[in-house]
Amino acid sequence: MVTLKRLVLDVLKPHQPDALAFCKELAQLGPDYRVSLNVDEMDENTQTLQLEIRGESIDLGPIEEAIARMGASVHSVDQVEVLNQPDEE
Amino acid sequence: MVTLKRLVLDVLKPHQPDALAFCKELAQLGPDYRVSLNVDEMDENTQTLQLEIRGESIDLGPIEEAIARMGASVHSVDQVEVLNQPDEE
Amino acid sequence: MVTLKRLVLDVLKPHQPDALAFCKELAQLGPDYRVSLNVDEMDENTQTLQLEIRGESIDLGPIEEAIARMGASVHSVDQVEVLNQPDEE
Amino acid sequence: MVTLKRLVLDVLKPHQPDALAFCKELAQLGPDYRVSLNVDEMDENTQTLQLEIRGESIDLGPIEEAIARMGASVHSVDQVEVLNQPDEE
Amino acid sequence: MVTLKRLVLDVLKPHQPDALAFCKELAQLGPDYRVSLNVDEMDENTQTLQLEIRGESIDLGPIEEAIARMGASVHSVDQVEVLNQPDEE
Amino acid sequence: MVTLKRLVLDVLKPHQPDALAFCKELAQLGPDYRVSLNVDEMDENTQTLQLEIRGESIDLGPIEEAIARMGASVHSVDQVEVLNQPDEE
Amino acid sequence: MVTLKRLVLDVLKPHQPDALAFCKELAQLGPDYRVSLNVDEMDENTQTLQLEIRGESIDLGPIEEAIARMGASVHSVDQVEVLNQPDEE
Repeated sequence: MVTLKRLVLDVLKPHQPDALAFCKELAQLGPDYRVSLNVDEMDENTQTLQLEIRGESIDLGPIEEAIARMGASVHSVDQVEVLNQPDEE
Repeated sequence: MVTLKRLVLDVLKPHQPDALAFCKELAQLGPDYRVSLNVDEMDENTQTLQLEIRGESIDLGPIEEAIARMGASVHSVDQVEVLNQPDEE
Repeated sequence: MVTLKRLVLDVLKPHQPDALAFCKELAQLGPDYRVSLNVDEMDENTQTLQLEIRGESIDLGPIEEAIARMGASVHSVDQVEVLNQPDEE
Repeated sequence: MVTLKRLVLDVLKPHQPDALAFCKELAQLGPDYRVSLNVDEMDENTQTLQLEIRGESIDLGPIEEAIARMGASVHSVDQVEVLNQPDEE
Repeated sequence: MVTLKRLVLDVLKPHQPDALAFCKELAQLGPDYRVSLNVDEMDENTQTLQLEIRGESIDLGPIEEAIARMGASVHSVDQVEVLNQPDEE
Repeated sequence: MVTLKRLVLDVLKPHQPDALAFCKELAQLGPDYRVSLNVDEMDENTQTLQLEIRGESIDLGPIEEAIARMGASVHSVDQVEVLNQPDEE
Repeated sequence: MVTLKRLVLDVLKPHQPDALAFCKELAQLGPDYRVSLNVDEMDENTQTLQLEIRGESIDLGPIEEAIARMGASVHSVDQVEVLNQPDEE
């Protein structure tokens, strides 16, 4: 089975929700998600973030939906790492 | 449960309390907090700090309150790392 | 037996399929393929990618076919690592 | 208990006592202190030092007193690392 | 016995055979050869490669012959690592 | 007991004794001294060296004497690392 | 006993003997010598090399003789590492 193990997104978000709330919202989408966020730029209304998500089997759809629901947008998918593994492991 | 594991803040603080007292005050807010402080700039009245806090489960609210109580302010939240883990671990 | 262990390709692809779908398609070509993708440049219609594939025994032909089938093209093969190993290992 | 584990000081000192005597004097203030000194600049009468002290539980007061007693002064506290640990460890 | 363990060559080769075929041809010259190839430059007719070969006991002669046979030429031997070891090991 | 564990000296020396003889002379001053020498500059009559000495308990006095006896001079003590340890260890 | 463990030489050599023959000749001078050679510059008649030799107990004399015998010359001794160890180890 091919699973997504790592994802780096370039995200533009409003100041609210703040960085921590934003990460927590995303982390709770998967049982082992580790979400790291770096603020690259900030202006009056928005923040440009580099967002990295790691997990055993990341599901991108709900992540994109949550990002949109929080008023942010994915500028680009910068890195992706997938792995094909035997199903029972 | 989603917990905050690492936090990097850009902080502006007055010279008093000094860096050590400032860190100790923050470290005692959590039973395993490791607080690292780098002084990035200094002028007559203030210091610009990079402050990193690590712990198993960091609670941002009391940290922000303590920073404010010491007359300092959080310029920006630069990095955040959260992890979703099973509750009993 | 000489097998290909690692491959780095410079690839030009249209925006669709997106980076994740593109990687998953390639990863399922081998039972242990690990596919990492970095987006180096992006313009209106295309993305320039660095694509790295790792595995115990990579078969380049089906990878090239899949890349072409998805409307992308291999700009260059940038790195190759092969290993000669005893057959029973 | 919150303890200081690491301290980096920017220090201005006269040529005497020399770097080794200076470090030894500071190291004997704690039972496990490791003191590293880098000379960053030197002019006719003074040396600018980066001084790093590591230990299980560093006590800053006596360090500052010893530095002053040797005719040197702490330019700035550049880095501080504190840790909150259970008392019995 | 003195054996060659690592070799880095700067090689100019035509586009055919391609990088993978070129590496496989070289790797099969020794029972444990690991061949890594980086394309440094490319023009219309040729590629400039950095070629690294690792193995327990590399034999340079056949490597040079194979390179010539494939229409490429060794620009320079950039790195060499040899080791003197007891014969029975 | 506070002991010197590491010392980096900036040394000016004549061409004779040469670098190896110079290092050996210093290494034999302590039962476990490891002496590393980098030649930073060289002119007609002298060499500027970075000299690093490591050991369990380095004694600086005899090192300085040996350096002087070989016609060289310590330009500066660039780094010093001392450790306070229990006496019986 | 003080022994030489590592040696870095800046060497000027003619094109013949080539880099591999040159290294092999030097490696066979000690039972465990590891000789690494990097070509730093090359002109019509000569190569400038960085040559690193590692071993448990390197003997510089025969190395210098072999270098001279092969028509090359030691430009400079760039790094030296010696260690004082108990004789029976």
